[in-house]
Amino acid sequence: MKAAVFLLLTLLVPAYHTGAQCIIDNAVDLKVQAAISSTVSSTLAKAKLLCQDVSARGALVSCPAGYKPTACACGMACGSWDIRSDSTCHCQCGGIDWTAARCCKIGLE
Amino acid sequence: MKAAVFLLLTLLVPAYHTGAQCIIDNAVDLKVQAAISSTVSSTLAKAKLLCQDVSARGALVSCPAGYKPTACACGMACGSWDIRSDSTCHCQCGGIDWTAARCCKIGLE
Amino acid sequence: MKAAVFLLLTLLVPAYHTGAQCIIDNAVDLKVQAAISSTVSSTLAKAKLLCQDVSARGALVSCPAGYKPTACACGMACGSWDIRSDSTCHCQCGGIDWTAARCCKIGLE
Repeated sequence: MKAAVFLLLTLLVPAYHTGAQCIIDNAVDLKVQAAISSTVSSTLAKAKLLCQDVSARGALVSCPAGYKPTACACGMACGSWDIRSDSTCHCQCGGIDWTAARCCKIGLE
Repeated sequence: MKAAVFLLLTLLVPAYHTGAQCIIDNAVDLKVQAAISSTVSSTLAKAKLLCQDVSARGALVSCPAGYKPTACACGMACGSWDIRSDSTCHCQCGGIDWTAARCCKIGLE
Repeated sequence: MKAAVFLLLTLLVPAYHTGAQCIIDNAVDLKVQAAISSTVSSTLAKAKLLCQDVSARGALVSCPAGYKPTACACGMACGSWDIRSDSTCHCQCGGIDWTAARCCKIGLE
């Protein structure tokens, strides 16, 4: 009888360990993939381009922190501009009166 | 012998419960983190800037729903423009013949 | 006594299977949701608009692969432009000397 109990233990305990690992693996695989896909999709769907305009007198204007200029507009009908340091709009025409920047970032709405 | 079986039960059942919880915790931690990181990265890698141009006669043109204007272009060589209500390009030069908007959004390709 | 051991096995093994499934389900639900939300949020927070400027002599300039033009700038103060094939800035004024493109993409910083 002692042998039977010992046999039971030696059979049951390893079976539990490998069986549990396998059940866990399968359950986690299925549940995790479904949960991740749904959460990632619904969170990404909320990712929007958030934009604002800033303008100033003169030939230079900078975007607020965290925003990047996507374009510049200039007074005096001028369409010649460049962007300095990835953050500041510069209108090139002489004696420019105003400069505007279109500034965007990625945000969650 | 009955005592031996009882002892087996009282030892094995609680050991199963706490042991399983611990195995589950560790397995889930490892598997979840790996699965999340890989899914988030591969989904984000598909996030693209989707853009289109719209143009119209006159001094005003709006982006389609869901898109934001990142810049405006104007007829008559005019480079002076502004964006109204975060959606409409407005060219400022007098008697403007056409206005175009560059319209973008975040999408999954 | 053999009957008792057999009874133990027939009771314990199915109880292990259904009990483990339930514990796994609950543990995974709680842990997965927390881990996913936190990983998705922190990864998305790293999603930025990455931009660069390219310019060239003449009336045409293209963005590097993977980047989309968000605006164009032109020499000679010209503000009339269009974007060809979703990738190339074209300045429309006659005899244009230079064309620049503001090129952006979504990236992880």
